[in-house]
Amino acid sequence: MTERIWTAALVVIGDEILSGRTQDRNVAQLATWLNVQGIRLAEVRVVPDVQDSIVEAVNALRTRNDYLFTTGGIGPTHDDITVDAIAAALGVGVTIHPAAREVLTRYYESRGGITDARLRMARVPEGAELIVNRVSGAPGIRIGNVFILAGVPHIAAGMLDALTGTLEGGRPVLSRTIGAWVAESEIAELLHATERAHSQGADSGVAIGSYPFFRDGRTGANFVIRATRQELLDACGDALIVGLGSMGLETFDGGI
Amino acid sequence: MTERIWTAALVVIGDEILSGRTQDRNVAQLATWLNVQGIRLAEVRVVPDVQDSIVEAVNALRTRNDYLFTTGGIGPTHDDITVDAIAAALGVGVTIHPAAREVLTRYYESRGGITDARLRMARVPEGAELIVNRVSGAPGIRIGNVFILAGVPHIAAGMLDALTGTLEGGRPVLSRTIGAWVAESEIAELLHATERAHSQGADSGVAIGSYPFFRDGRTGANFVIRATRQELLDACGDALIVGLGSMGLETFDGGI
Repeated sequence: MTERIWTAALVVIGDEILSGRTQDRNVAQLATWLNVQGIRLAEVRVVPDVQDSIVEAVNALRTRNDYLFTTGGIGPTHDDITVDAIAAALGVGVTIHPAAREVLTRYYESRGGITDARLRMARVPEGAELIVNRVSGAPGIRIGNVFILAGVPHIAAGMLDALTGTLEGGRPVLSRTIGAWVAESEIAELLHATERAHSQGADSGVAIGSYPFFRDGRTGANFVIRATRQELLDACGDALIVGLGSMGLETFDGGI
Repeated sequence: MTERIWTAALVVIGDEILSGRTQDRNVAQLATWLNVQGIRLAEVRVVPDVQDSIVEAVNALRTRNDYLFTTGGIGPTHDDITVDAIAAALGVGVTIHPAAREVLTRYYESRGGITDARLRMARVPEGAELIVNRVSGAPGIRIGNVFILAGVPHIAAGMLDALTGTLEGGRPVLSRTIGAWVAESEIAELLHATERAHSQGADSGVAIGSYPFFRDGRTGANFVIRATRQELLDACGDALIVGLGSMGLETFDGGI
């Protein structure tokens, strides 16, 4: 039986990423979290703090993936337009969420009190639910298959933590890394043949990625095998070790 | 007179980014380099090592930007399909570039000699030119407004270095950072009003970004002002310092 592959996309919203000022951490963080939920990160777009750009990306990706995540642009300042843009993308209005207002009022009680700017963070697209924020004040937002997270990585991490186990997904992706001191160009054929020999179709495929590096003046590479079935992962990895060994190469199960 | 804004887009090609295994560094690196060329990074997409995905992203972005860059997928292994995908996107064939073959033959002379797998790295879309690679063997590729760079960040950096000053662009973006120990929600109004007061239209705009942080138990934020005109940058920054000062806040020109 063909297993369904669950996919997610991410829209990173922020001029600070596109200007090079801030190094994004949310792509890798979300990808790693999704792997464990049995969901594959299929595509990412980084867009500026411009409503039309956000709307276009959100609508393109939410329709062709099971889930869509966004990071960034949910703070209190004028450049935080994510909620308005997503409401526009979905064709709904924006409203103050009573529970978000309560959370924020409580959070700011000992921090100078609630203000109009802070109340902006209680605004949600109509019909949305909240995602718990255990780290700071403003909650994340879920509406349909769209998940609106904070841009600050450790706050986004807390929101993902709150979502763990709540999304329907498939089998988690398993991986195995095998390293060798070899130029990847010397074993390109072997990699290709090994991958082809072990792939059994869309629902039970194996993919081998090749990641070269240079260290202490030597050339090496790690080969990462990914599969959703343990037996395929094992068989493919063992075959690769045998193949590399037959070329006289020492291998490192777990990578170099 | 309205000045033209030059834009570029980036397609990051690589399963290793989408799986979370590798932390991308090329977005920030390219963005920073583009700023100095007077070109704005307008949009980024991260796509898997799948031809259809690459073709779709390349064709969407190359037509609506002055320049399109790609990183990743130009090595010797079976998962390196960038050249074929871009040739398909442009509707041209793939050919061995004689100068690339020469470069690779020379490079591998002392490294075990040229092989079929290594020769793959001399393949280019028909009509392409090479981009010098001062760091390792395989060159980058330019075809029309598409620039194909390596995925390994320090190799991509070398290719960008070789391109410095060769692309037509506008005025470089200038920036000024002002920091204060304040919750951004307290000065949201001030930021908005200051930005609005100093923006003089599309060709002479000012943008203020707000970047909160938490350090040593205190809440602070850096405000980054960006403009292409020095006089606007100065005036907007000075006004922001006066505004923050009138609220009793100490400011740090250059950021915290």
